[in-house]
Amino acid sequence: MQASQRISTMLGGGSDGWEVFARARQMIAEGTPVTELTIGEHDIRTAAPILQEMHRTALGGHTGYASISGIPALRDAIAERVSARTGVPTRRENVIITSGGQSALFAAHTAVLDPGDTALYIDPYYATYPGTVRGVSARPQAIKAHASEAFQPRSADIAAHAAEAKSLMINSPNNPTGVVYNRDTLNGIAQVCRTHDLWLISDEVYDTQIWEGMHISPRSLDGMAERTLVIGSMSKSHAMTGSRIGWVIAPEHIVTHLINLATHTTYGVPGFIQDAALFALRQGEAFETEIAEPFRRRRALAYEILKAQSVVGMIPNAGAMYMMLDIRATGLSGEAFAYALLDAHRIAVMPGESFGAAAAGHIRVAMTVDDAAFTTALNTLCNFAQKLVTNRAAAATS
Amino acid sequence: MQASQRISTMLGGGSDGWEVFARARQMIAEGTPVTELTIGEHDIRTAAPILQEMHRTALGGHTGYASISGIPALRDAIAERVSARTGVPTRRENVIITSGGQSALFAAHTAVLDPGDTALYIDPYYATYPGTVRGVSARPQAIKAHASEAFQPRSADIAAHAAEAKSLMINSPNNPTGVVYNRDTLNGIAQVCRTHDLWLISDEVYDTQIWEGMHISPRSLDGMAERTLVIGSMSKSHAMTGSRIGWVIAPEHIVTHLINLATHTTYGVPGFIQDAALFALRQGEAFETEIAEPFRRRRALAYEILKAQSVVGMIPNAGAMYMMLDIRATGLSGEAFAYALLDAHRIAVMPGESFGAAAAGHIRVAMTVDDAAFTTALNTLCNFAQKLVTNRAAAATS
Repeated sequence: MQASQRISTMLGGGSDGWEVFARARQMIAEGTPVTELTIGEHDIRTAAPILQEMHRTALGGHTGYASISGIPALRDAIAERVSARTGVPTRRENVIITSGGQSALFAAHTAVLDPGDTALYIDPYYATYPGTVRGVSARPQAIKAHASEAFQPRSADIAAHAAEAKSLMINSPNNPTGVVYNRDTLNGIAQVCRTHDLWLISDEVYDTQIWEGMHISPRSLDGMAERTLVIGSMSKSHAMTGSRIGWVIAPEHIVTHLINLATHTTYGVPGFIQDAALFALRQGEAFETEIAEPFRRRRALAYEILKAQSVVGMIPNAGAMYMMLDIRATGLSGEAFAYALLDAHRIAVMPGESFGAAAAGHIRVAMTVDDAAFTTALNTLCNFAQKLVTNRAAAATS
Repeated sequence: MQASQRISTMLGGGSDGWEVFARARQMIAEGTPVTELTIGEHDIRTAAPILQEMHRTALGGHTGYASISGIPALRDAIAERVSARTGVPTRRENVIITSGGQSALFAAHTAVLDPGDTALYIDPYYATYPGTVRGVSARPQAIKAHASEAFQPRSADIAAHAAEAKSLMINSPNNPTGVVYNRDTLNGIAQVCRTHDLWLISDEVYDTQIWEGMHISPRSLDGMAERTLVIGSMSKSHAMTGSRIGWVIAPEHIVTHLINLATHTTYGVPGFIQDAALFALRQGEAFETEIAEPFRRRRALAYEILKAQSVVGMIPNAGAMYMMLDIRATGLSGEAFAYALLDAHRIAVMPGESFGAAAAGHIRVAMTVDDAAFTTALNTLCNFAQKLVTNRAAAATS
């Protein structure tokens, strides 16, 4: 018996460099200590007061089916937050609570794409993007951004594929690059969307992690609120990755459809988790800053280390918990470098190739271990790259 | 901007009788007490020890991304449980944990259907079934079962549509009817599936609620394990509806694909909820019997009440938390009866029509209020039906 073609071809086939991650996990499972700079997960756990609120409300009886759209108080809190931070009037009816950001991405694509439609996304990209599009039986089309332009996508490149497309997915602050799209980039994107009548799916789950400049939600640009679905999540902003709670902000008619979809997919999100999320949001911006602070600190440490050498390049990361490092001077691919670093020094990073062809020759470093371990790992990485360059030069002249 | 056709047409259009449920909820919101016999939800909450285990493991740090397929210990526990209860050797690799039974249904259909494929299901059906099929861009085709045959579906009726179909979804013990498919019915279904090379999606979330006879999982029948996806859930068996945790049991290659799908839809289920589910499963059958007991008790009360009158008929409910009552003697549709009963006596039941054409002239009664309230409500319902019949006879002879 054959599985459906849709699910069988979801991964697109071919190596994607995630094998190095699997190898690192295998080494850890076998007892070898590895410094993991791979997955976008905090080195802290969800704060105890949030969990205590979850327990309080669960014990209090919020363990039955919760409202499928999300509990009204949480939808209101998110609507208020979005209104305040973006200036776009946002009401409860614009918000649906989802089982995390990935669930929101899948729902958003289901809402705007029919089978066979083309969906654009920017390369480098978060690993699930093309599969999410294939999962709704649509066709993913990557638009390459360029390392030389700090991975700010060119609107002309998007426009070149816009006529055949129904939607565009962007992600700023960006995973894997840490790049924050500037106003020019976003204005260009908005212009393409308006001109070609594209839906914009804007993944903004890192919007509380901004190290330089500011986050601009494209939904706030002229004529964009009616065509933009914003993906949000408690995962990164509140260190609640494992709670699986996020949302979509969208025009009301889309939210109505998304509630129907949720009835047929997740049947809503646990009520006690929603209560915990509401409690977490009510801690305000100070709490979010506290959660983001370690990454800001480590980024500063990283800049010091990188400044002191000239072999490893860096894409300026104005946000998020990642750095995209250019290791092309070593002559290795991102994947080969990642394997070599893992074998030589038990440091695990992600090959840039895992996030698309545009990031070839790069590695993604997640700033997700404590400051001391991070500093050591980054120094080791730079020295290792330097040695590779030296050896290569020696080989070339010998 | 238009939503996708897929999401816009998911509900199929037309009234489905759920308006009476909405009206009941509205009355409650406005302060009118209503006896709710509508939704399949226990009148107890999730047991405190389960919630305490959830809190213990969350505080212990299980708040990060959990394994997307499910934590190994839970997959193993479910595999063991299924092996023991059905006799079919089942391993961890046959199990994926999902965000509840509905999520499992959606995933199962995604795994076996491509856009445009036809999926069969039995009428009467749980309300989300046709929308679940439409949600994966496939075509739902109902196969009518008959009240006169206690809604045991005829295999010949299924066979008549099998050539055009790729899958069949069944649900025993059944929501909305409470019917448990007997061995003949299931053998017939299995035969059709084998002959026409159909996938069988078997929703068995009520498998711990059996009042007469026994539950047979069709996966245990000859040649069926390779073509059957079983939907399971902690919702009904352990009163954990709001925790949104369930599973699919399937051939290993399908589970591999389902894990990829989960990576692109839910990104897994909260680890602390999985830990709580594992704890709940380890309470053993005695606990499950205790959770089911109120429905067994109320069913016995209902049989006494129904035996004492002859106006309201009953489909023999050998399982689940529902009764399907035949009110055709009143001359009303299920929907008209439900509205009239709500208005006259503040008792809310579901019109049979909400679950398909086959259940027209019936109402579904959920046995989900305490024994005294349930007895009162059912007596009132029968008297109300009697009065309708009397009035009708009087009108006919006047």
